[in-house]
Amino acid sequence: MNYPNGKNKVKNNNINYGNRGMNLEEDLNITNEYYLETNTAVIYKKPTPIVINHVNYPNRYDAVITDARFKIPSTTDYNGIYNGKYIDFEAKETASLTSFPLANIHKHQIVHLKKITEHGGIGFIIVSFSRLNRLFLLKAEDLFYFIDNNNRKSIPLAYFEERAKEMKVTLRPRIDYLKYIDIE
Amino acid sequence: MNYPNGKNKVKNNNINYGNRGMNLEEDLNITNEYYLETNTAVIYKKPTPIVINHVNYPNRYDAVITDARFKIPSTTDYNGIYNGKYIDFEAKETASLTSFPLANIHKHQIVHLKKITEHGGIGFIIVSFSRLNRLFLLKAEDLFYFIDNNNRKSIPLAYFEERAKEMKVTLRPRIDYLKYIDIE
Repeated sequence: MNYPNGKNKVKNNNINYGNRGMNLEEDLNITNEYYLETNTAVIYKKPTPIVINHVNYPNRYDAVITDARFKIPSTTDYNGIYNGKYIDFEAKETASLTSFPLANIHKHQIVHLKKITEHGGIGFIIVSFSRLNRLFLLKAEDLFYFIDNNNRKSIPLAYFEERAKEMKVTLRPRIDYLKYIDIE
Repeated sequence: MNYPNGKNKVKNNNINYGNRGMNLEEDLNITNEYYLETNTAVIYKKPTPIVINHVNYPNRYDAVITDARFKIPSTTDYNGIYNGKYIDFEAKETASLTSFPLANIHKHQIVHLKKITEHGGIGFIIVSFSRLNRLFLLKAEDLFYFIDNNNRKSIPLAYFEERAKEMKVTLRPRIDYLKYIDIE
């Protein structure tokens, strides 16, 4: 095989993110398992918050939830510890080709990320532009900067290109996002 | 009112924990809200992990989970950040008068706490002996020490009296557990 330049070589190692039938959440869960196995970090996705209205007990060893509703989350989906530091982030996919709609992140999740950074934690969002096959890590501070200085309902792709880290999807780990928070 | 000694005064400020019809989880949630409001710490209870098998959509704005099961948790119930430090703990009540059954804590929760402390986090368990109206915070390290050096299925109350911090339940915050991890 012939790699005329580095760019092509990198492309070849990439997984075509948009067409795999996999999703961002799955890839992050697999990455977090890898971090656990390699003793790199202890980071988990939180369970989906629900309100349970009714549980059936068909026998003494079994419990079946038969009526429950989804609840709006108060926090981000992922948190844990890396290198002695508290880590906290939200991950979202968008089909947009030009911008990331802020409606994808609940207001109290942004408030939560703000508190985390104030208390000395590392906060960020991971955004996948799935149809562009591009993946970014945007530090919470840069997210706040955009919101505080723009009266817009979405963050343009150009802002990600300028301020975020573009991440590669690889085989193992899938999305080595901790590598991208080291570079500062 | 007459307080012949300090001990009585403290007793008077206490809430009778066993007889209030309140539970430990509720008190910890209220305490965590207090920590949030006073900007002391950002600590949440994780949602109960479930596996969703079926969701009904009676209309386009509604989603009702009609079949789900409880899942064994991989981690502890509570985590967050305090003073720049990653905090991680499990809270349990026991009706026993003499010891805390280790069956109350899943093996992988202990493994999880071990990883947390190895990565520089602060791990502990909060144990309520509800019928004794006594409440303890036991550091993860002292939990591991007991397990590694005893072939027992429960931790005697005497071990808590010797190694753990006994906590008071007060009006606001209910259980000021962060105060007890400061003292070392």
